[in-house]
Amino acid sequence: MQQRADQIRRDGHTVAFVPTMGYLHEGHVSLMKEARRQADRVILSIFVNPTQFGPNEDLDSYPRDPARDMALAEKAGVDLVFTPDRNTLYPGGYETYVIQTQLPEHLCGLSRPGHFRGVMTIVAKLFNIVKPHCAVFGQKDYQQLAVLRRMTADLNFDVRIIGAPTVRETDGLAMSSRNKYLSESQRTAAVCLFRSLDAARDLAEKGATESAALIKTATAAIEAAADTQIDYITICDPDTLEDVAVIDRPVLMAMAVRIGQTRLIDNMMLTPPA
Amino acid sequence: MQQRADQIRRDGHTVAFVPTMGYLHEGHVSLMKEARRQADRVILSIFVNPTQFGPNEDLDSYPRDPARDMALAEKAGVDLVFTPDRNTLYPGGYETYVIQTQLPEHLCGLSRPGHFRGVMTIVAKLFNIVKPHCAVFGQKDYQQLAVLRRMTADLNFDVRIIGAPTVRETDGLAMSSRNKYLSESQRTAAVCLFRSLDAARDLAEKGATESAALIKTATAAIEAAADTQIDYITICDPDTLEDVAVIDRPVLMAMAVRIGQTRLIDNMMLTPPA
Repeated sequence: MQQRADQIRRDGHTVAFVPTMGYLHEGHVSLMKEARRQADRVILSIFVNPTQFGPNEDLDSYPRDPARDMALAEKAGVDLVFTPDRNTLYPGGYETYVIQTQLPEHLCGLSRPGHFRGVMTIVAKLFNIVKPHCAVFGQKDYQQLAVLRRMTADLNFDVRIIGAPTVRETDGLAMSSRNKYLSESQRTAAVCLFRSLDAARDLAEKGATESAALIKTATAAIEAAADTQIDYITICDPDTLEDVAVIDRPVLMAMAVRIGQTRLIDNMMLTPPA
Repeated sequence: MQQRADQIRRDGHTVAFVPTMGYLHEGHVSLMKEARRQADRVILSIFVNPTQFGPNEDLDSYPRDPARDMALAEKAGVDLVFTPDRNTLYPGGYETYVIQTQLPEHLCGLSRPGHFRGVMTIVAKLFNIVKPHCAVFGQKDYQQLAVLRRMTADLNFDVRIIGAPTVRETDGLAMSSRNKYLSESQRTAAVCLFRSLDAARDLAEKGATESAALIKTATAAIEAAADTQIDYITICDPDTLEDVAVIDRPVLMAMAVRIGQTRLIDNMMLTPPA
């Protein structure tokens, strides 16, 4: 892959990279299409990265469908699909990781210790293998995008990071490979994440400024849905991810909620009236 | 620098990189000459990296002589000297580091917590900025070389790591920028590191196999010299740096010794008779 990457660059092409864990959905398709607009070569990677899963998480059951993934990638105009295997990327004696001291201490980082260490490590590795000019990540995984922007700047990777808007089902549920885990009734309940964020956005746009009040309203909406358990609901600074008490500028509302055993995340920018 | 690096690569050149903290000596010259043999472009960096110094170490007093460094680099055939400034490499809000879980838990890592985290972080950054095909490091800093080899493999940097032999003064003292700190009498005492290593190597070549006995002999030799304080003397596996009790294969003997306030390190391979 490194030799191919060198050759593509020597031939004067630009490369846009979309790293994924496979089981592609419309959200990924939108990332590939964005990549298609950004460069004249698009490389997709599919790798279920073990180092970003906790010991009690769904590494072994993470959904896979390589044939469907390849078809979707081809249809979206991907030039090359990179599918490394686990022992090549993490051979015996592997011991190097990329960490951050601040951003992972918020939101999902608190309930998923080591998760962002794993994410940063695999993305650093893939950047060094694929050697892209830019890389596209979804805003649905907002903290991941923030962590990777910071990592890319801090470690001087010569890669432009592009965030692409969340793609939603018709009822508003954010697309996610993990939606597959939901039963029919859970699928119905799962729309509560989007609805509570959308309601909070409405209130903020109408002039509500107290984060606590919006979080309280959202909490009630989530708790009213069947089979839900809130991991966190936060209103925070979109760069530092630190809590914001008063909405006097655009802020991020982010949440993680379990629907049954399935942990879903979603987020939205809240903007006060001008 | 990244644009220059891209241009050099597009022009079909290969790049050998020598990262240093400046105050160059004959040891560095040998690294530059090795780089000259490895590639058709040689890039030297000079940067006293704050993140590899502990709070009570010599960051502020680390010796500097930029004019002499430039002259030596030119004479050694360096094509480009990269001298970034501290605020560019570590701006406000900097928070990303490269770590290892095993190798830093040995030798110098034990008395310099965070040192190798800082070394790996700056080298990862410089690799991303300079984009070399290979990089040359001295074997005098053996653990650093081992850590960086491992980091380069683990993070898939497409960079060949080359270790260059230690260069010594005529009496055997390993060249180091920190030798400048030594008074005349300390300079005389400092040869005890080389002498004790050399004596241990002789014993091993004659069939001595007990690490403990060799360490005891070396310890006595160091303690007999004036104004010395041993940080560690170890015989270990050259790859994992784990202690080796019986010398039944080539092993590394490594030590750190304070001569007055100056901490010096040295090492040698010990090889049992065939």
